[in-house]
Amino acid sequence: MPASHQIELATTLLSIGSFLVIFLAARSLAEVMVRLQLPTILGELLGGVLIGISGLNLIGAPVAMASGGNGMLGLVGLVTHLGSLDVLHVYEDVYATLEQVATLGLYALLFRAGLESELDLLLAVALQALSVALAGVLLPFAAATSGLMLLFGVDLMPAIFAGASLTATSIGITASVFEELGVLRSREGQIVVGAAVLDDIFGIVILAVVVSFAGGAQPEPGLILQVIVAAVVFVLASLLLSRWAAPWFDGLVGRLKASGEMVVASFAVLAVVCLLSSAIGLEAALGAYGAGLMLSNSTQLEEIQRAVQPVASLFSTVFFVLIGAGLELGVLNPMEAANRPGLLVAIFLLLVAVAGKAMAGWSFFSEQPVRRLVVGIGMMPRGEVGLIFLGLGRQDQILTPGLESGILLAVIGTTFLAPVLLRQVLTPTAA
Amino acid sequence: MPASHQIELATTLLSIGSFLVIFLAARSLAEVMVRLQLPTILGELLGGVLIGISGLNLIGAPVAMASGGNGMLGLVGLVTHLGSLDVLHVYEDVYATLEQVATLGLYALLFRAGLESELDLLLAVALQALSVALAGVLLPFAAATSGLMLLFGVDLMPAIFAGASLTATSIGITASVFEELGVLRSREGQIVVGAAVLDDIFGIVILAVVVSFAGGAQPEPGLILQVIVAAVVFVLASLLLSRWAAPWFDGLVGRLKASGEMVVASFAVLAVVCLLSSAIGLEAALGAYGAGLMLSNSTQLEEIQRAVQPVASLFSTVFFVLIGAGLELGVLNPMEAANRPGLLVAIFLLLVAVAGKAMAGWSFFSEQPVRRLVVGIGMMPRGEVGLIFLGLGRQDQILTPGLESGILLAVIGTTFLAPVLLRQVLTPTAA
Repeated sequence: MPASHQIELATTLLSIGSFLVIFLAARSLAEVMVRLQLPTILGELLGGVLIGISGLNLIGAPVAMASGGNGMLGLVGLVTHLGSLDVLHVYEDVYATLEQVATLGLYALLFRAGLESELDLLLAVALQALSVALAGVLLPFAAATSGLMLLFGVDLMPAIFAGASLTATSIGITASVFEELGVLRSREGQIVVGAAVLDDIFGIVILAVVVSFAGGAQPEPGLILQVIVAAVVFVLASLLLSRWAAPWFDGLVGRLKASGEMVVASFAVLAVVCLLSSAIGLEAALGAYGAGLMLSNSTQLEEIQRAVQPVASLFSTVFFVLIGAGLELGVLNPMEAANRPGLLVAIFLLLVAVAGKAMAGWSFFSEQPVRRLVVGIGMMPRGEVGLIFLGLGRQDQILTPGLESGILLAVIGTTFLAPVLLRQVLTPTAA
Repeated sequence: MPASHQIELATTLLSIGSFLVIFLAARSLAEVMVRLQLPTILGELLGGVLIGISGLNLIGAPVAMASGGNGMLGLVGLVTHLGSLDVLHVYEDVYATLEQVATLGLYALLFRAGLESELDLLLAVALQALSVALAGVLLPFAAATSGLMLLFGVDLMPAIFAGASLTATSIGITASVFEELGVLRSREGQIVVGAAVLDDIFGIVILAVVVSFAGGAQPEPGLILQVIVAAVVFVLASLLLSRWAAPWFDGLVGRLKASGEMVVASFAVLAVVCLLSSAIGLEAALGAYGAGLMLSNSTQLEEIQRAVQPVASLFSTVFFVLIGAGLELGVLNPMEAANRPGLLVAIFLLLVAVAGKAMAGWSFFSEQPVRRLVVGIGMMPRGEVGLIFLGLGRQDQILTPGLESGILLAVIGTTFLAPVLLRQVLTPTAA
């Protein structure tokens, strides 16, 4: 029986070590991406792959670590004089904490996405944005779900899940690339950002519906309708409340005097709305997004964003890295004949993800001239929401390793392609 | 056997709920303290007592929750349709995460304490500060340890632990009260802040030595000497490295381009130094302090502090609340005859804590006139380091509940008394 101080030392070493490995890998690759003018989220995902079960095997689900060959666990065993089973047991606790931190990071990400949805901006281009958003959600969703079922014989539930994970454009990535190229305030920029806000909402409603049936048995139409109505009502209520909750929040924060009040008050609102949505049977993730929507009208929006930023970026890094770390990239290795169907699925998902959003650029009427290709490419990068589907699908064991890798390839591929293509299309115009 | 989505929902509800309860309690009472012109740390401790096992019984070690009567666990059981044993099992995981977050908060606190130690300021009042620090460490340590053993029959190890927990003045509390009263730059202010920096270092070295023997058998003189030398060398190395590491860090951060680089780089340094100190057999807490010392010479000190602040304040709140939540205040109830010895111990510790530091105000020579009472009272408030002893002592099961409560009473009492007395002594002079 190991002494308690050995266990404690092992816990300290493993938890600090895991966080260190996660941040070093994520940030080193993020630095590379910044220099390549690519989004940093790609670096964090690839950093995860590097240290995960398909890479150095330092971070991953405890089951995957049990087979041995993990350098970090071996080292901790040496320093603490603990047996490998004891170290593995400590690692299980540490990994559970990593997962909870990642979940907090996911909520923080969605909270920020809600905060960033400039609702007033939407009104100016409302019709075009709505049309682009609807087309950009329905085309990839329908094509991916039906294609997976008809062409590849995937079951209904995983097919819907994979299709839904391709619906939402990443506001953050698109907006930052548009800003860098100086076209964020152009007509195309406005439409894309507006549509990205809307398809986040659609995507998260789909998420709430799909996940609520993921754990249970066959979904009944009556129940599905009930969850859809609940989710839509929840989002609409958040939108309406944003007129009323933000001034109330501003008043509350104004009366608080202990330092650090903004970060705590923001996270308290986040926690309350998450709890509310969980308690009425919706995903806590939907609540996180709703909390952001509610506060997006605050006069102190910038202070909220600045207060939430450091915590959100630390936690979301853990989220992205764990996504990358858990991927079995081996299933995409084309050298093994058994993998080729899975590889085809991945390529199919990437094509659908690219084509579906590109076509959405032609889905609206406009009296003024609009560069439709810019809109289509602008809608392309997936990010947070797609990865959230991936994370929840893995948690609920809905997705096969092949499907998981396919979705990640589509997310990484679109996130990589969009800035490159946009620069290609826009640079001659700017010159 | 409960379904996995029930467990998941229970985990979400309990973890969000626990954090929410912790922050609401801590911040509400912190707001009260700010209005009473008392340090907010008192609010966070009392918030913990309010929701802990001596209060509403919402947060506490799982063992204490097993007996039932916990409102939060009952509510989660109702919502998720899980049995009370299943809910308790989920709570065990959630509580383990709370404890790990609290530990990270402790490291963040010590990191900040290290950052705040203005070493150059020390040189101007070096001799007086050293003398005050030595007297202020030795007097309470010797009086408390010997008193506990001789008067109350406490064992050597817990007595040393309790004595050591009274050694270190809280720089943060003292500096903020002095600043508020406009005497931070006075001669007394400089001496007190300098001495507070030094007694932190002494206290943390004592901590490293004491804790390294807490888990093992009878301490051997040779081993004690070895750990003392290691700890002293470690602190001296940190001090020396601060001349060299800070410019290196500034150069590194200057070359980083991905956003959020400051918070990640700071925590990476923290993690590396913590790992180093653990690996050579010293407390990770000492490493956290050393990391702060190393970076305290950075030209970007303010940016580091601003980047670390939100994370540190969130995590340290969890640390303070868990300290308060775990306290069995019932052992101090004077109505029960069995408690009276414990109550006497608590009063004795508070008296020693107050008198020991007050006397340190007369421990130095000065050619200029110095208000020695101001120096003595200024050294009085204990805080982070005392609570860290308390937290580690509980973790290693060194302290009895009575001794734990006594230490907390001394920490709370001095933190409460110091600002009140200082205002009393200083206000007539200012008028």
